[in-house]
Amino acid sequence: MSKKKVVIALGGNALEEKGKPSTAENQLQVVKRTAEKLAAISAAGYEIAIVHGNGPQVGRILLASETAHNVTPRMPFDVCGAMSQGYIGYHIQQAMKAALTRVGRGDIPVVSLVTQVVVDPEDPAFQNPSKPIGMFYTEEEAWKLERENGYIMQEDAGRGWRRVVPSPRPQEIVEFETLKRLWDSTIVILCGGGGVPVVRHADGILEGVPAVIDKDLAAGLVARSIGADQLMILTEVEQVAIHYRQPHQQDLDSMTVEEAEAYMAAGEFAPGSMLPKVQAAVEFVRSKPGRQAVITSLDRAREALEGKAGTRIFQEEGV
Amino acid sequence: MSKKKVVIALGGNALEEKGKPSTAENQLQVVKRTAEKLAAISAAGYEIAIVHGNGPQVGRILLASETAHNVTPRMPFDVCGAMSQGYIGYHIQQAMKAALTRVGRGDIPVVSLVTQVVVDPEDPAFQNPSKPIGMFYTEEEAWKLERENGYIMQEDAGRGWRRVVPSPRPQEIVEFETLKRLWDSTIVILCGGGGVPVVRHADGILEGVPAVIDKDLAAGLVARSIGADQLMILTEVEQVAIHYRQPHQQDLDSMTVEEAEAYMAAGEFAPGSMLPKVQAAVEFVRSKPGRQAVITSLDRAREALEGKAGTRIFQEEGV
Repeated sequence: MSKKKVVIALGGNALEEKGKPSTAENQLQVVKRTAEKLAAISAAGYEIAIVHGNGPQVGRILLASETAHNVTPRMPFDVCGAMSQGYIGYHIQQAMKAALTRVGRGDIPVVSLVTQVVVDPEDPAFQNPSKPIGMFYTEEEAWKLERENGYIMQEDAGRGWRRVVPSPRPQEIVEFETLKRLWDSTIVILCGGGGVPVVRHADGILEGVPAVIDKDLAAGLVARSIGADQLMILTEVEQVAIHYRQPHQQDLDSMTVEEAEAYMAAGEFAPGSMLPKVQAAVEFVRSKPGRQAVITSLDRAREALEGKAGTRIFQEEGV
Repeated sequence: MSKKKVVIALGGNALEEKGKPSTAENQLQVVKRTAEKLAAISAAGYEIAIVHGNGPQVGRILLASETAHNVTPRMPFDVCGAMSQGYIGYHIQQAMKAALTRVGRGDIPVVSLVTQVVVDPEDPAFQNPSKPIGMFYTEEEAWKLERENGYIMQEDAGRGWRRVVPSPRPQEIVEFETLKRLWDSTIVILCGGGGVPVVRHADGILEGVPAVIDKDLAAGLVARSIGADQLMILTEVEQVAIHYRQPHQQDLDSMTVEEAEAYMAAGEFAPGSMLPKVQAAVEFVRSKPGRQAVITSLDRAREALEGKAGTRIFQEEGV
C-alpha cells in the first residue's frame, strides 16, 4: 500500500509563542516542539509536505530594513519574503531532522525550497491592496513614501499610516517539478509565507511583486497540484466553530463542502483568519472525489489525520 | 554519453557591481547577466550545480538587524546566513529560469535549497576567530557586546571594533541526499555563502553556530560529494597569476596540483581571496583521478569548460 500523502499548513502558533520576546532563539524552541509533532506523523507512515506562514517574521525583516534604511538600502518586499523562507525553512528543517533522529528516522531527508508562486496581474486584489505590512508612519512620512518609493499607504485605525499590499490568489507553484521529484522520499518545506509572489510576463519571464499570498490557499494549491490525499491546516483552535465567540458557539466535528460554503456565505468565518482556511479546504475537497481536508490544532494533528479530532471537511459520495 | 557534471562557484562580482548602490534591485540586474552565461552552459549540455558567496549580502542583513535592534530583536548570525540564502537563491533561480526560457530551455527546473553544512567543533578556526562581520563599534560598545551577547570583538586597523567569527572547514552537506536526487534533472543552487554552519552533537542533533564557511571550499565539497567531473570557480580575473601585481606577474594557463601546492607554500595567493580557490581546486583534483578544476572569470566560463580559457588545475597521469 502506498503511503498517505498529506500537505500540512502551519499557522503562526507553530512558529512563535505569544507573550514571549519575538527572537529567533525563541522561535527555534517553538519550532522544535512543532517538529516533534510532525515527526510523529512522518514516522507513522505519512508522506508530508509543509507550508508555513511568515507574517510576524517578514514583518520584522521589513521593520529592520525600514529602520536601517539610512545605513543600508531598503529591501524590496518580495526579497523580504524570500529571506523569511530561508530563516523559517532553516529552523524547521533543522528541528525536523532532530525530531526524526529522536524517533529513529533520521534517514528521512528534509529540505526547504525557495519557492515562487505565480499570481495573476489581473487579480482584483491588485485594485484593492488591503494587507498592511511593516511599520507605522506619520502622514507626512507616508506621503513621502508614496511619492518616492511608489508605496500605497493607508491610515490604520488611528494608529498611523502603514504600507498596504494586495493579497492575490495563488495560481501556480513555479518549483512544482522539484516538489514532485522529491515528494515520495523527502519532507519538503515549500511556499513559505504563501510563496514569493511573481507575475509571468508575456515572454514567460517571471518578476517579483510586492504582495502577500495567503499561506492556507497556497497549501491548498500544493495539495491539489501534487495530488495529496489530505490537506491539514493547523491553527490555534482544535475545531472550526460557527457562532464563534457567541453564547451559542458550536464546534464542528465535520462539515460537507456544501455546509462550509453556506457558513462562508453567512459570514461565519473571519476574513484573514478562519475564512481562508475553510476556503482552501473546500477548494481542495472539491478538486477530486475522495479528497479530504481537516482543520485542527498542532496538538491534535496526529489524531485528526485518523479522523479522531479536528473539523473534517468532505464531500458526500455521489454528490 | 552522459552529460558532464560541473559545480560552479560564483564570486561576489557575479552578484554585485562595484561602484553601484548595493540595492537588491541592482543585484538582480547583475544576477540576470550572470544567469545568461550560466544558462548558455546548461543549454550546451552540462549538468550544473551552483554555489554562491554571500559576504556583502549577509553583511547588510546583519547591519540592518544591528541597527534596528532597539525596535526588533537581533538576528543570530546563522539565521542571517539562512536569510541570505533565501535572498540570493531567489534572485538566481528567477534569473536562471528567465535566461533558460530565452534559450528555449525553460523546461529545466531551477531551485535553491536552504543548506546546512557540518563543521567540526574541534576545528582550530574556533580557537582563532578571524572573520570580521557586521558594523564597526566603539571600544565601549564592543565591551558591552562581549559581555551581554557573548560576541568576540576585535579592533580593526584603527577603524573601530568589529565582531569576528571563525571560518572552519566544511565537512559534510546536510542536504546532500536532496542534491543527489535532483542533480541529473535540475539546476540546484545550494550552499549559499558556504552553507549555514552547524555542529553535530553526540546524539546526532545539529545546531547552528556563528561562523563563516568559505564558499569555494564548500563548492569543492559539493563537487567531491556528488562526483562532479569539473569544479569551476568564477572570480574577477580570467586566470590565476603568480607574482600577482608585481612587475613580473605571470598568468597561468594551467598548473599541476604539485605546482599549485608549491605556489601556495610560497605564499603566492592571498588568504581569503585566491588561496581558498586554489585550495578547493587542488582538493577536488586530488580526490579522484580524472577530475579537473578551472578558475576563471564569468565571461570566460563557457570557454574555460572546454579548456580554452582560465587556469586549469590538473593531476598528471600516473602521478
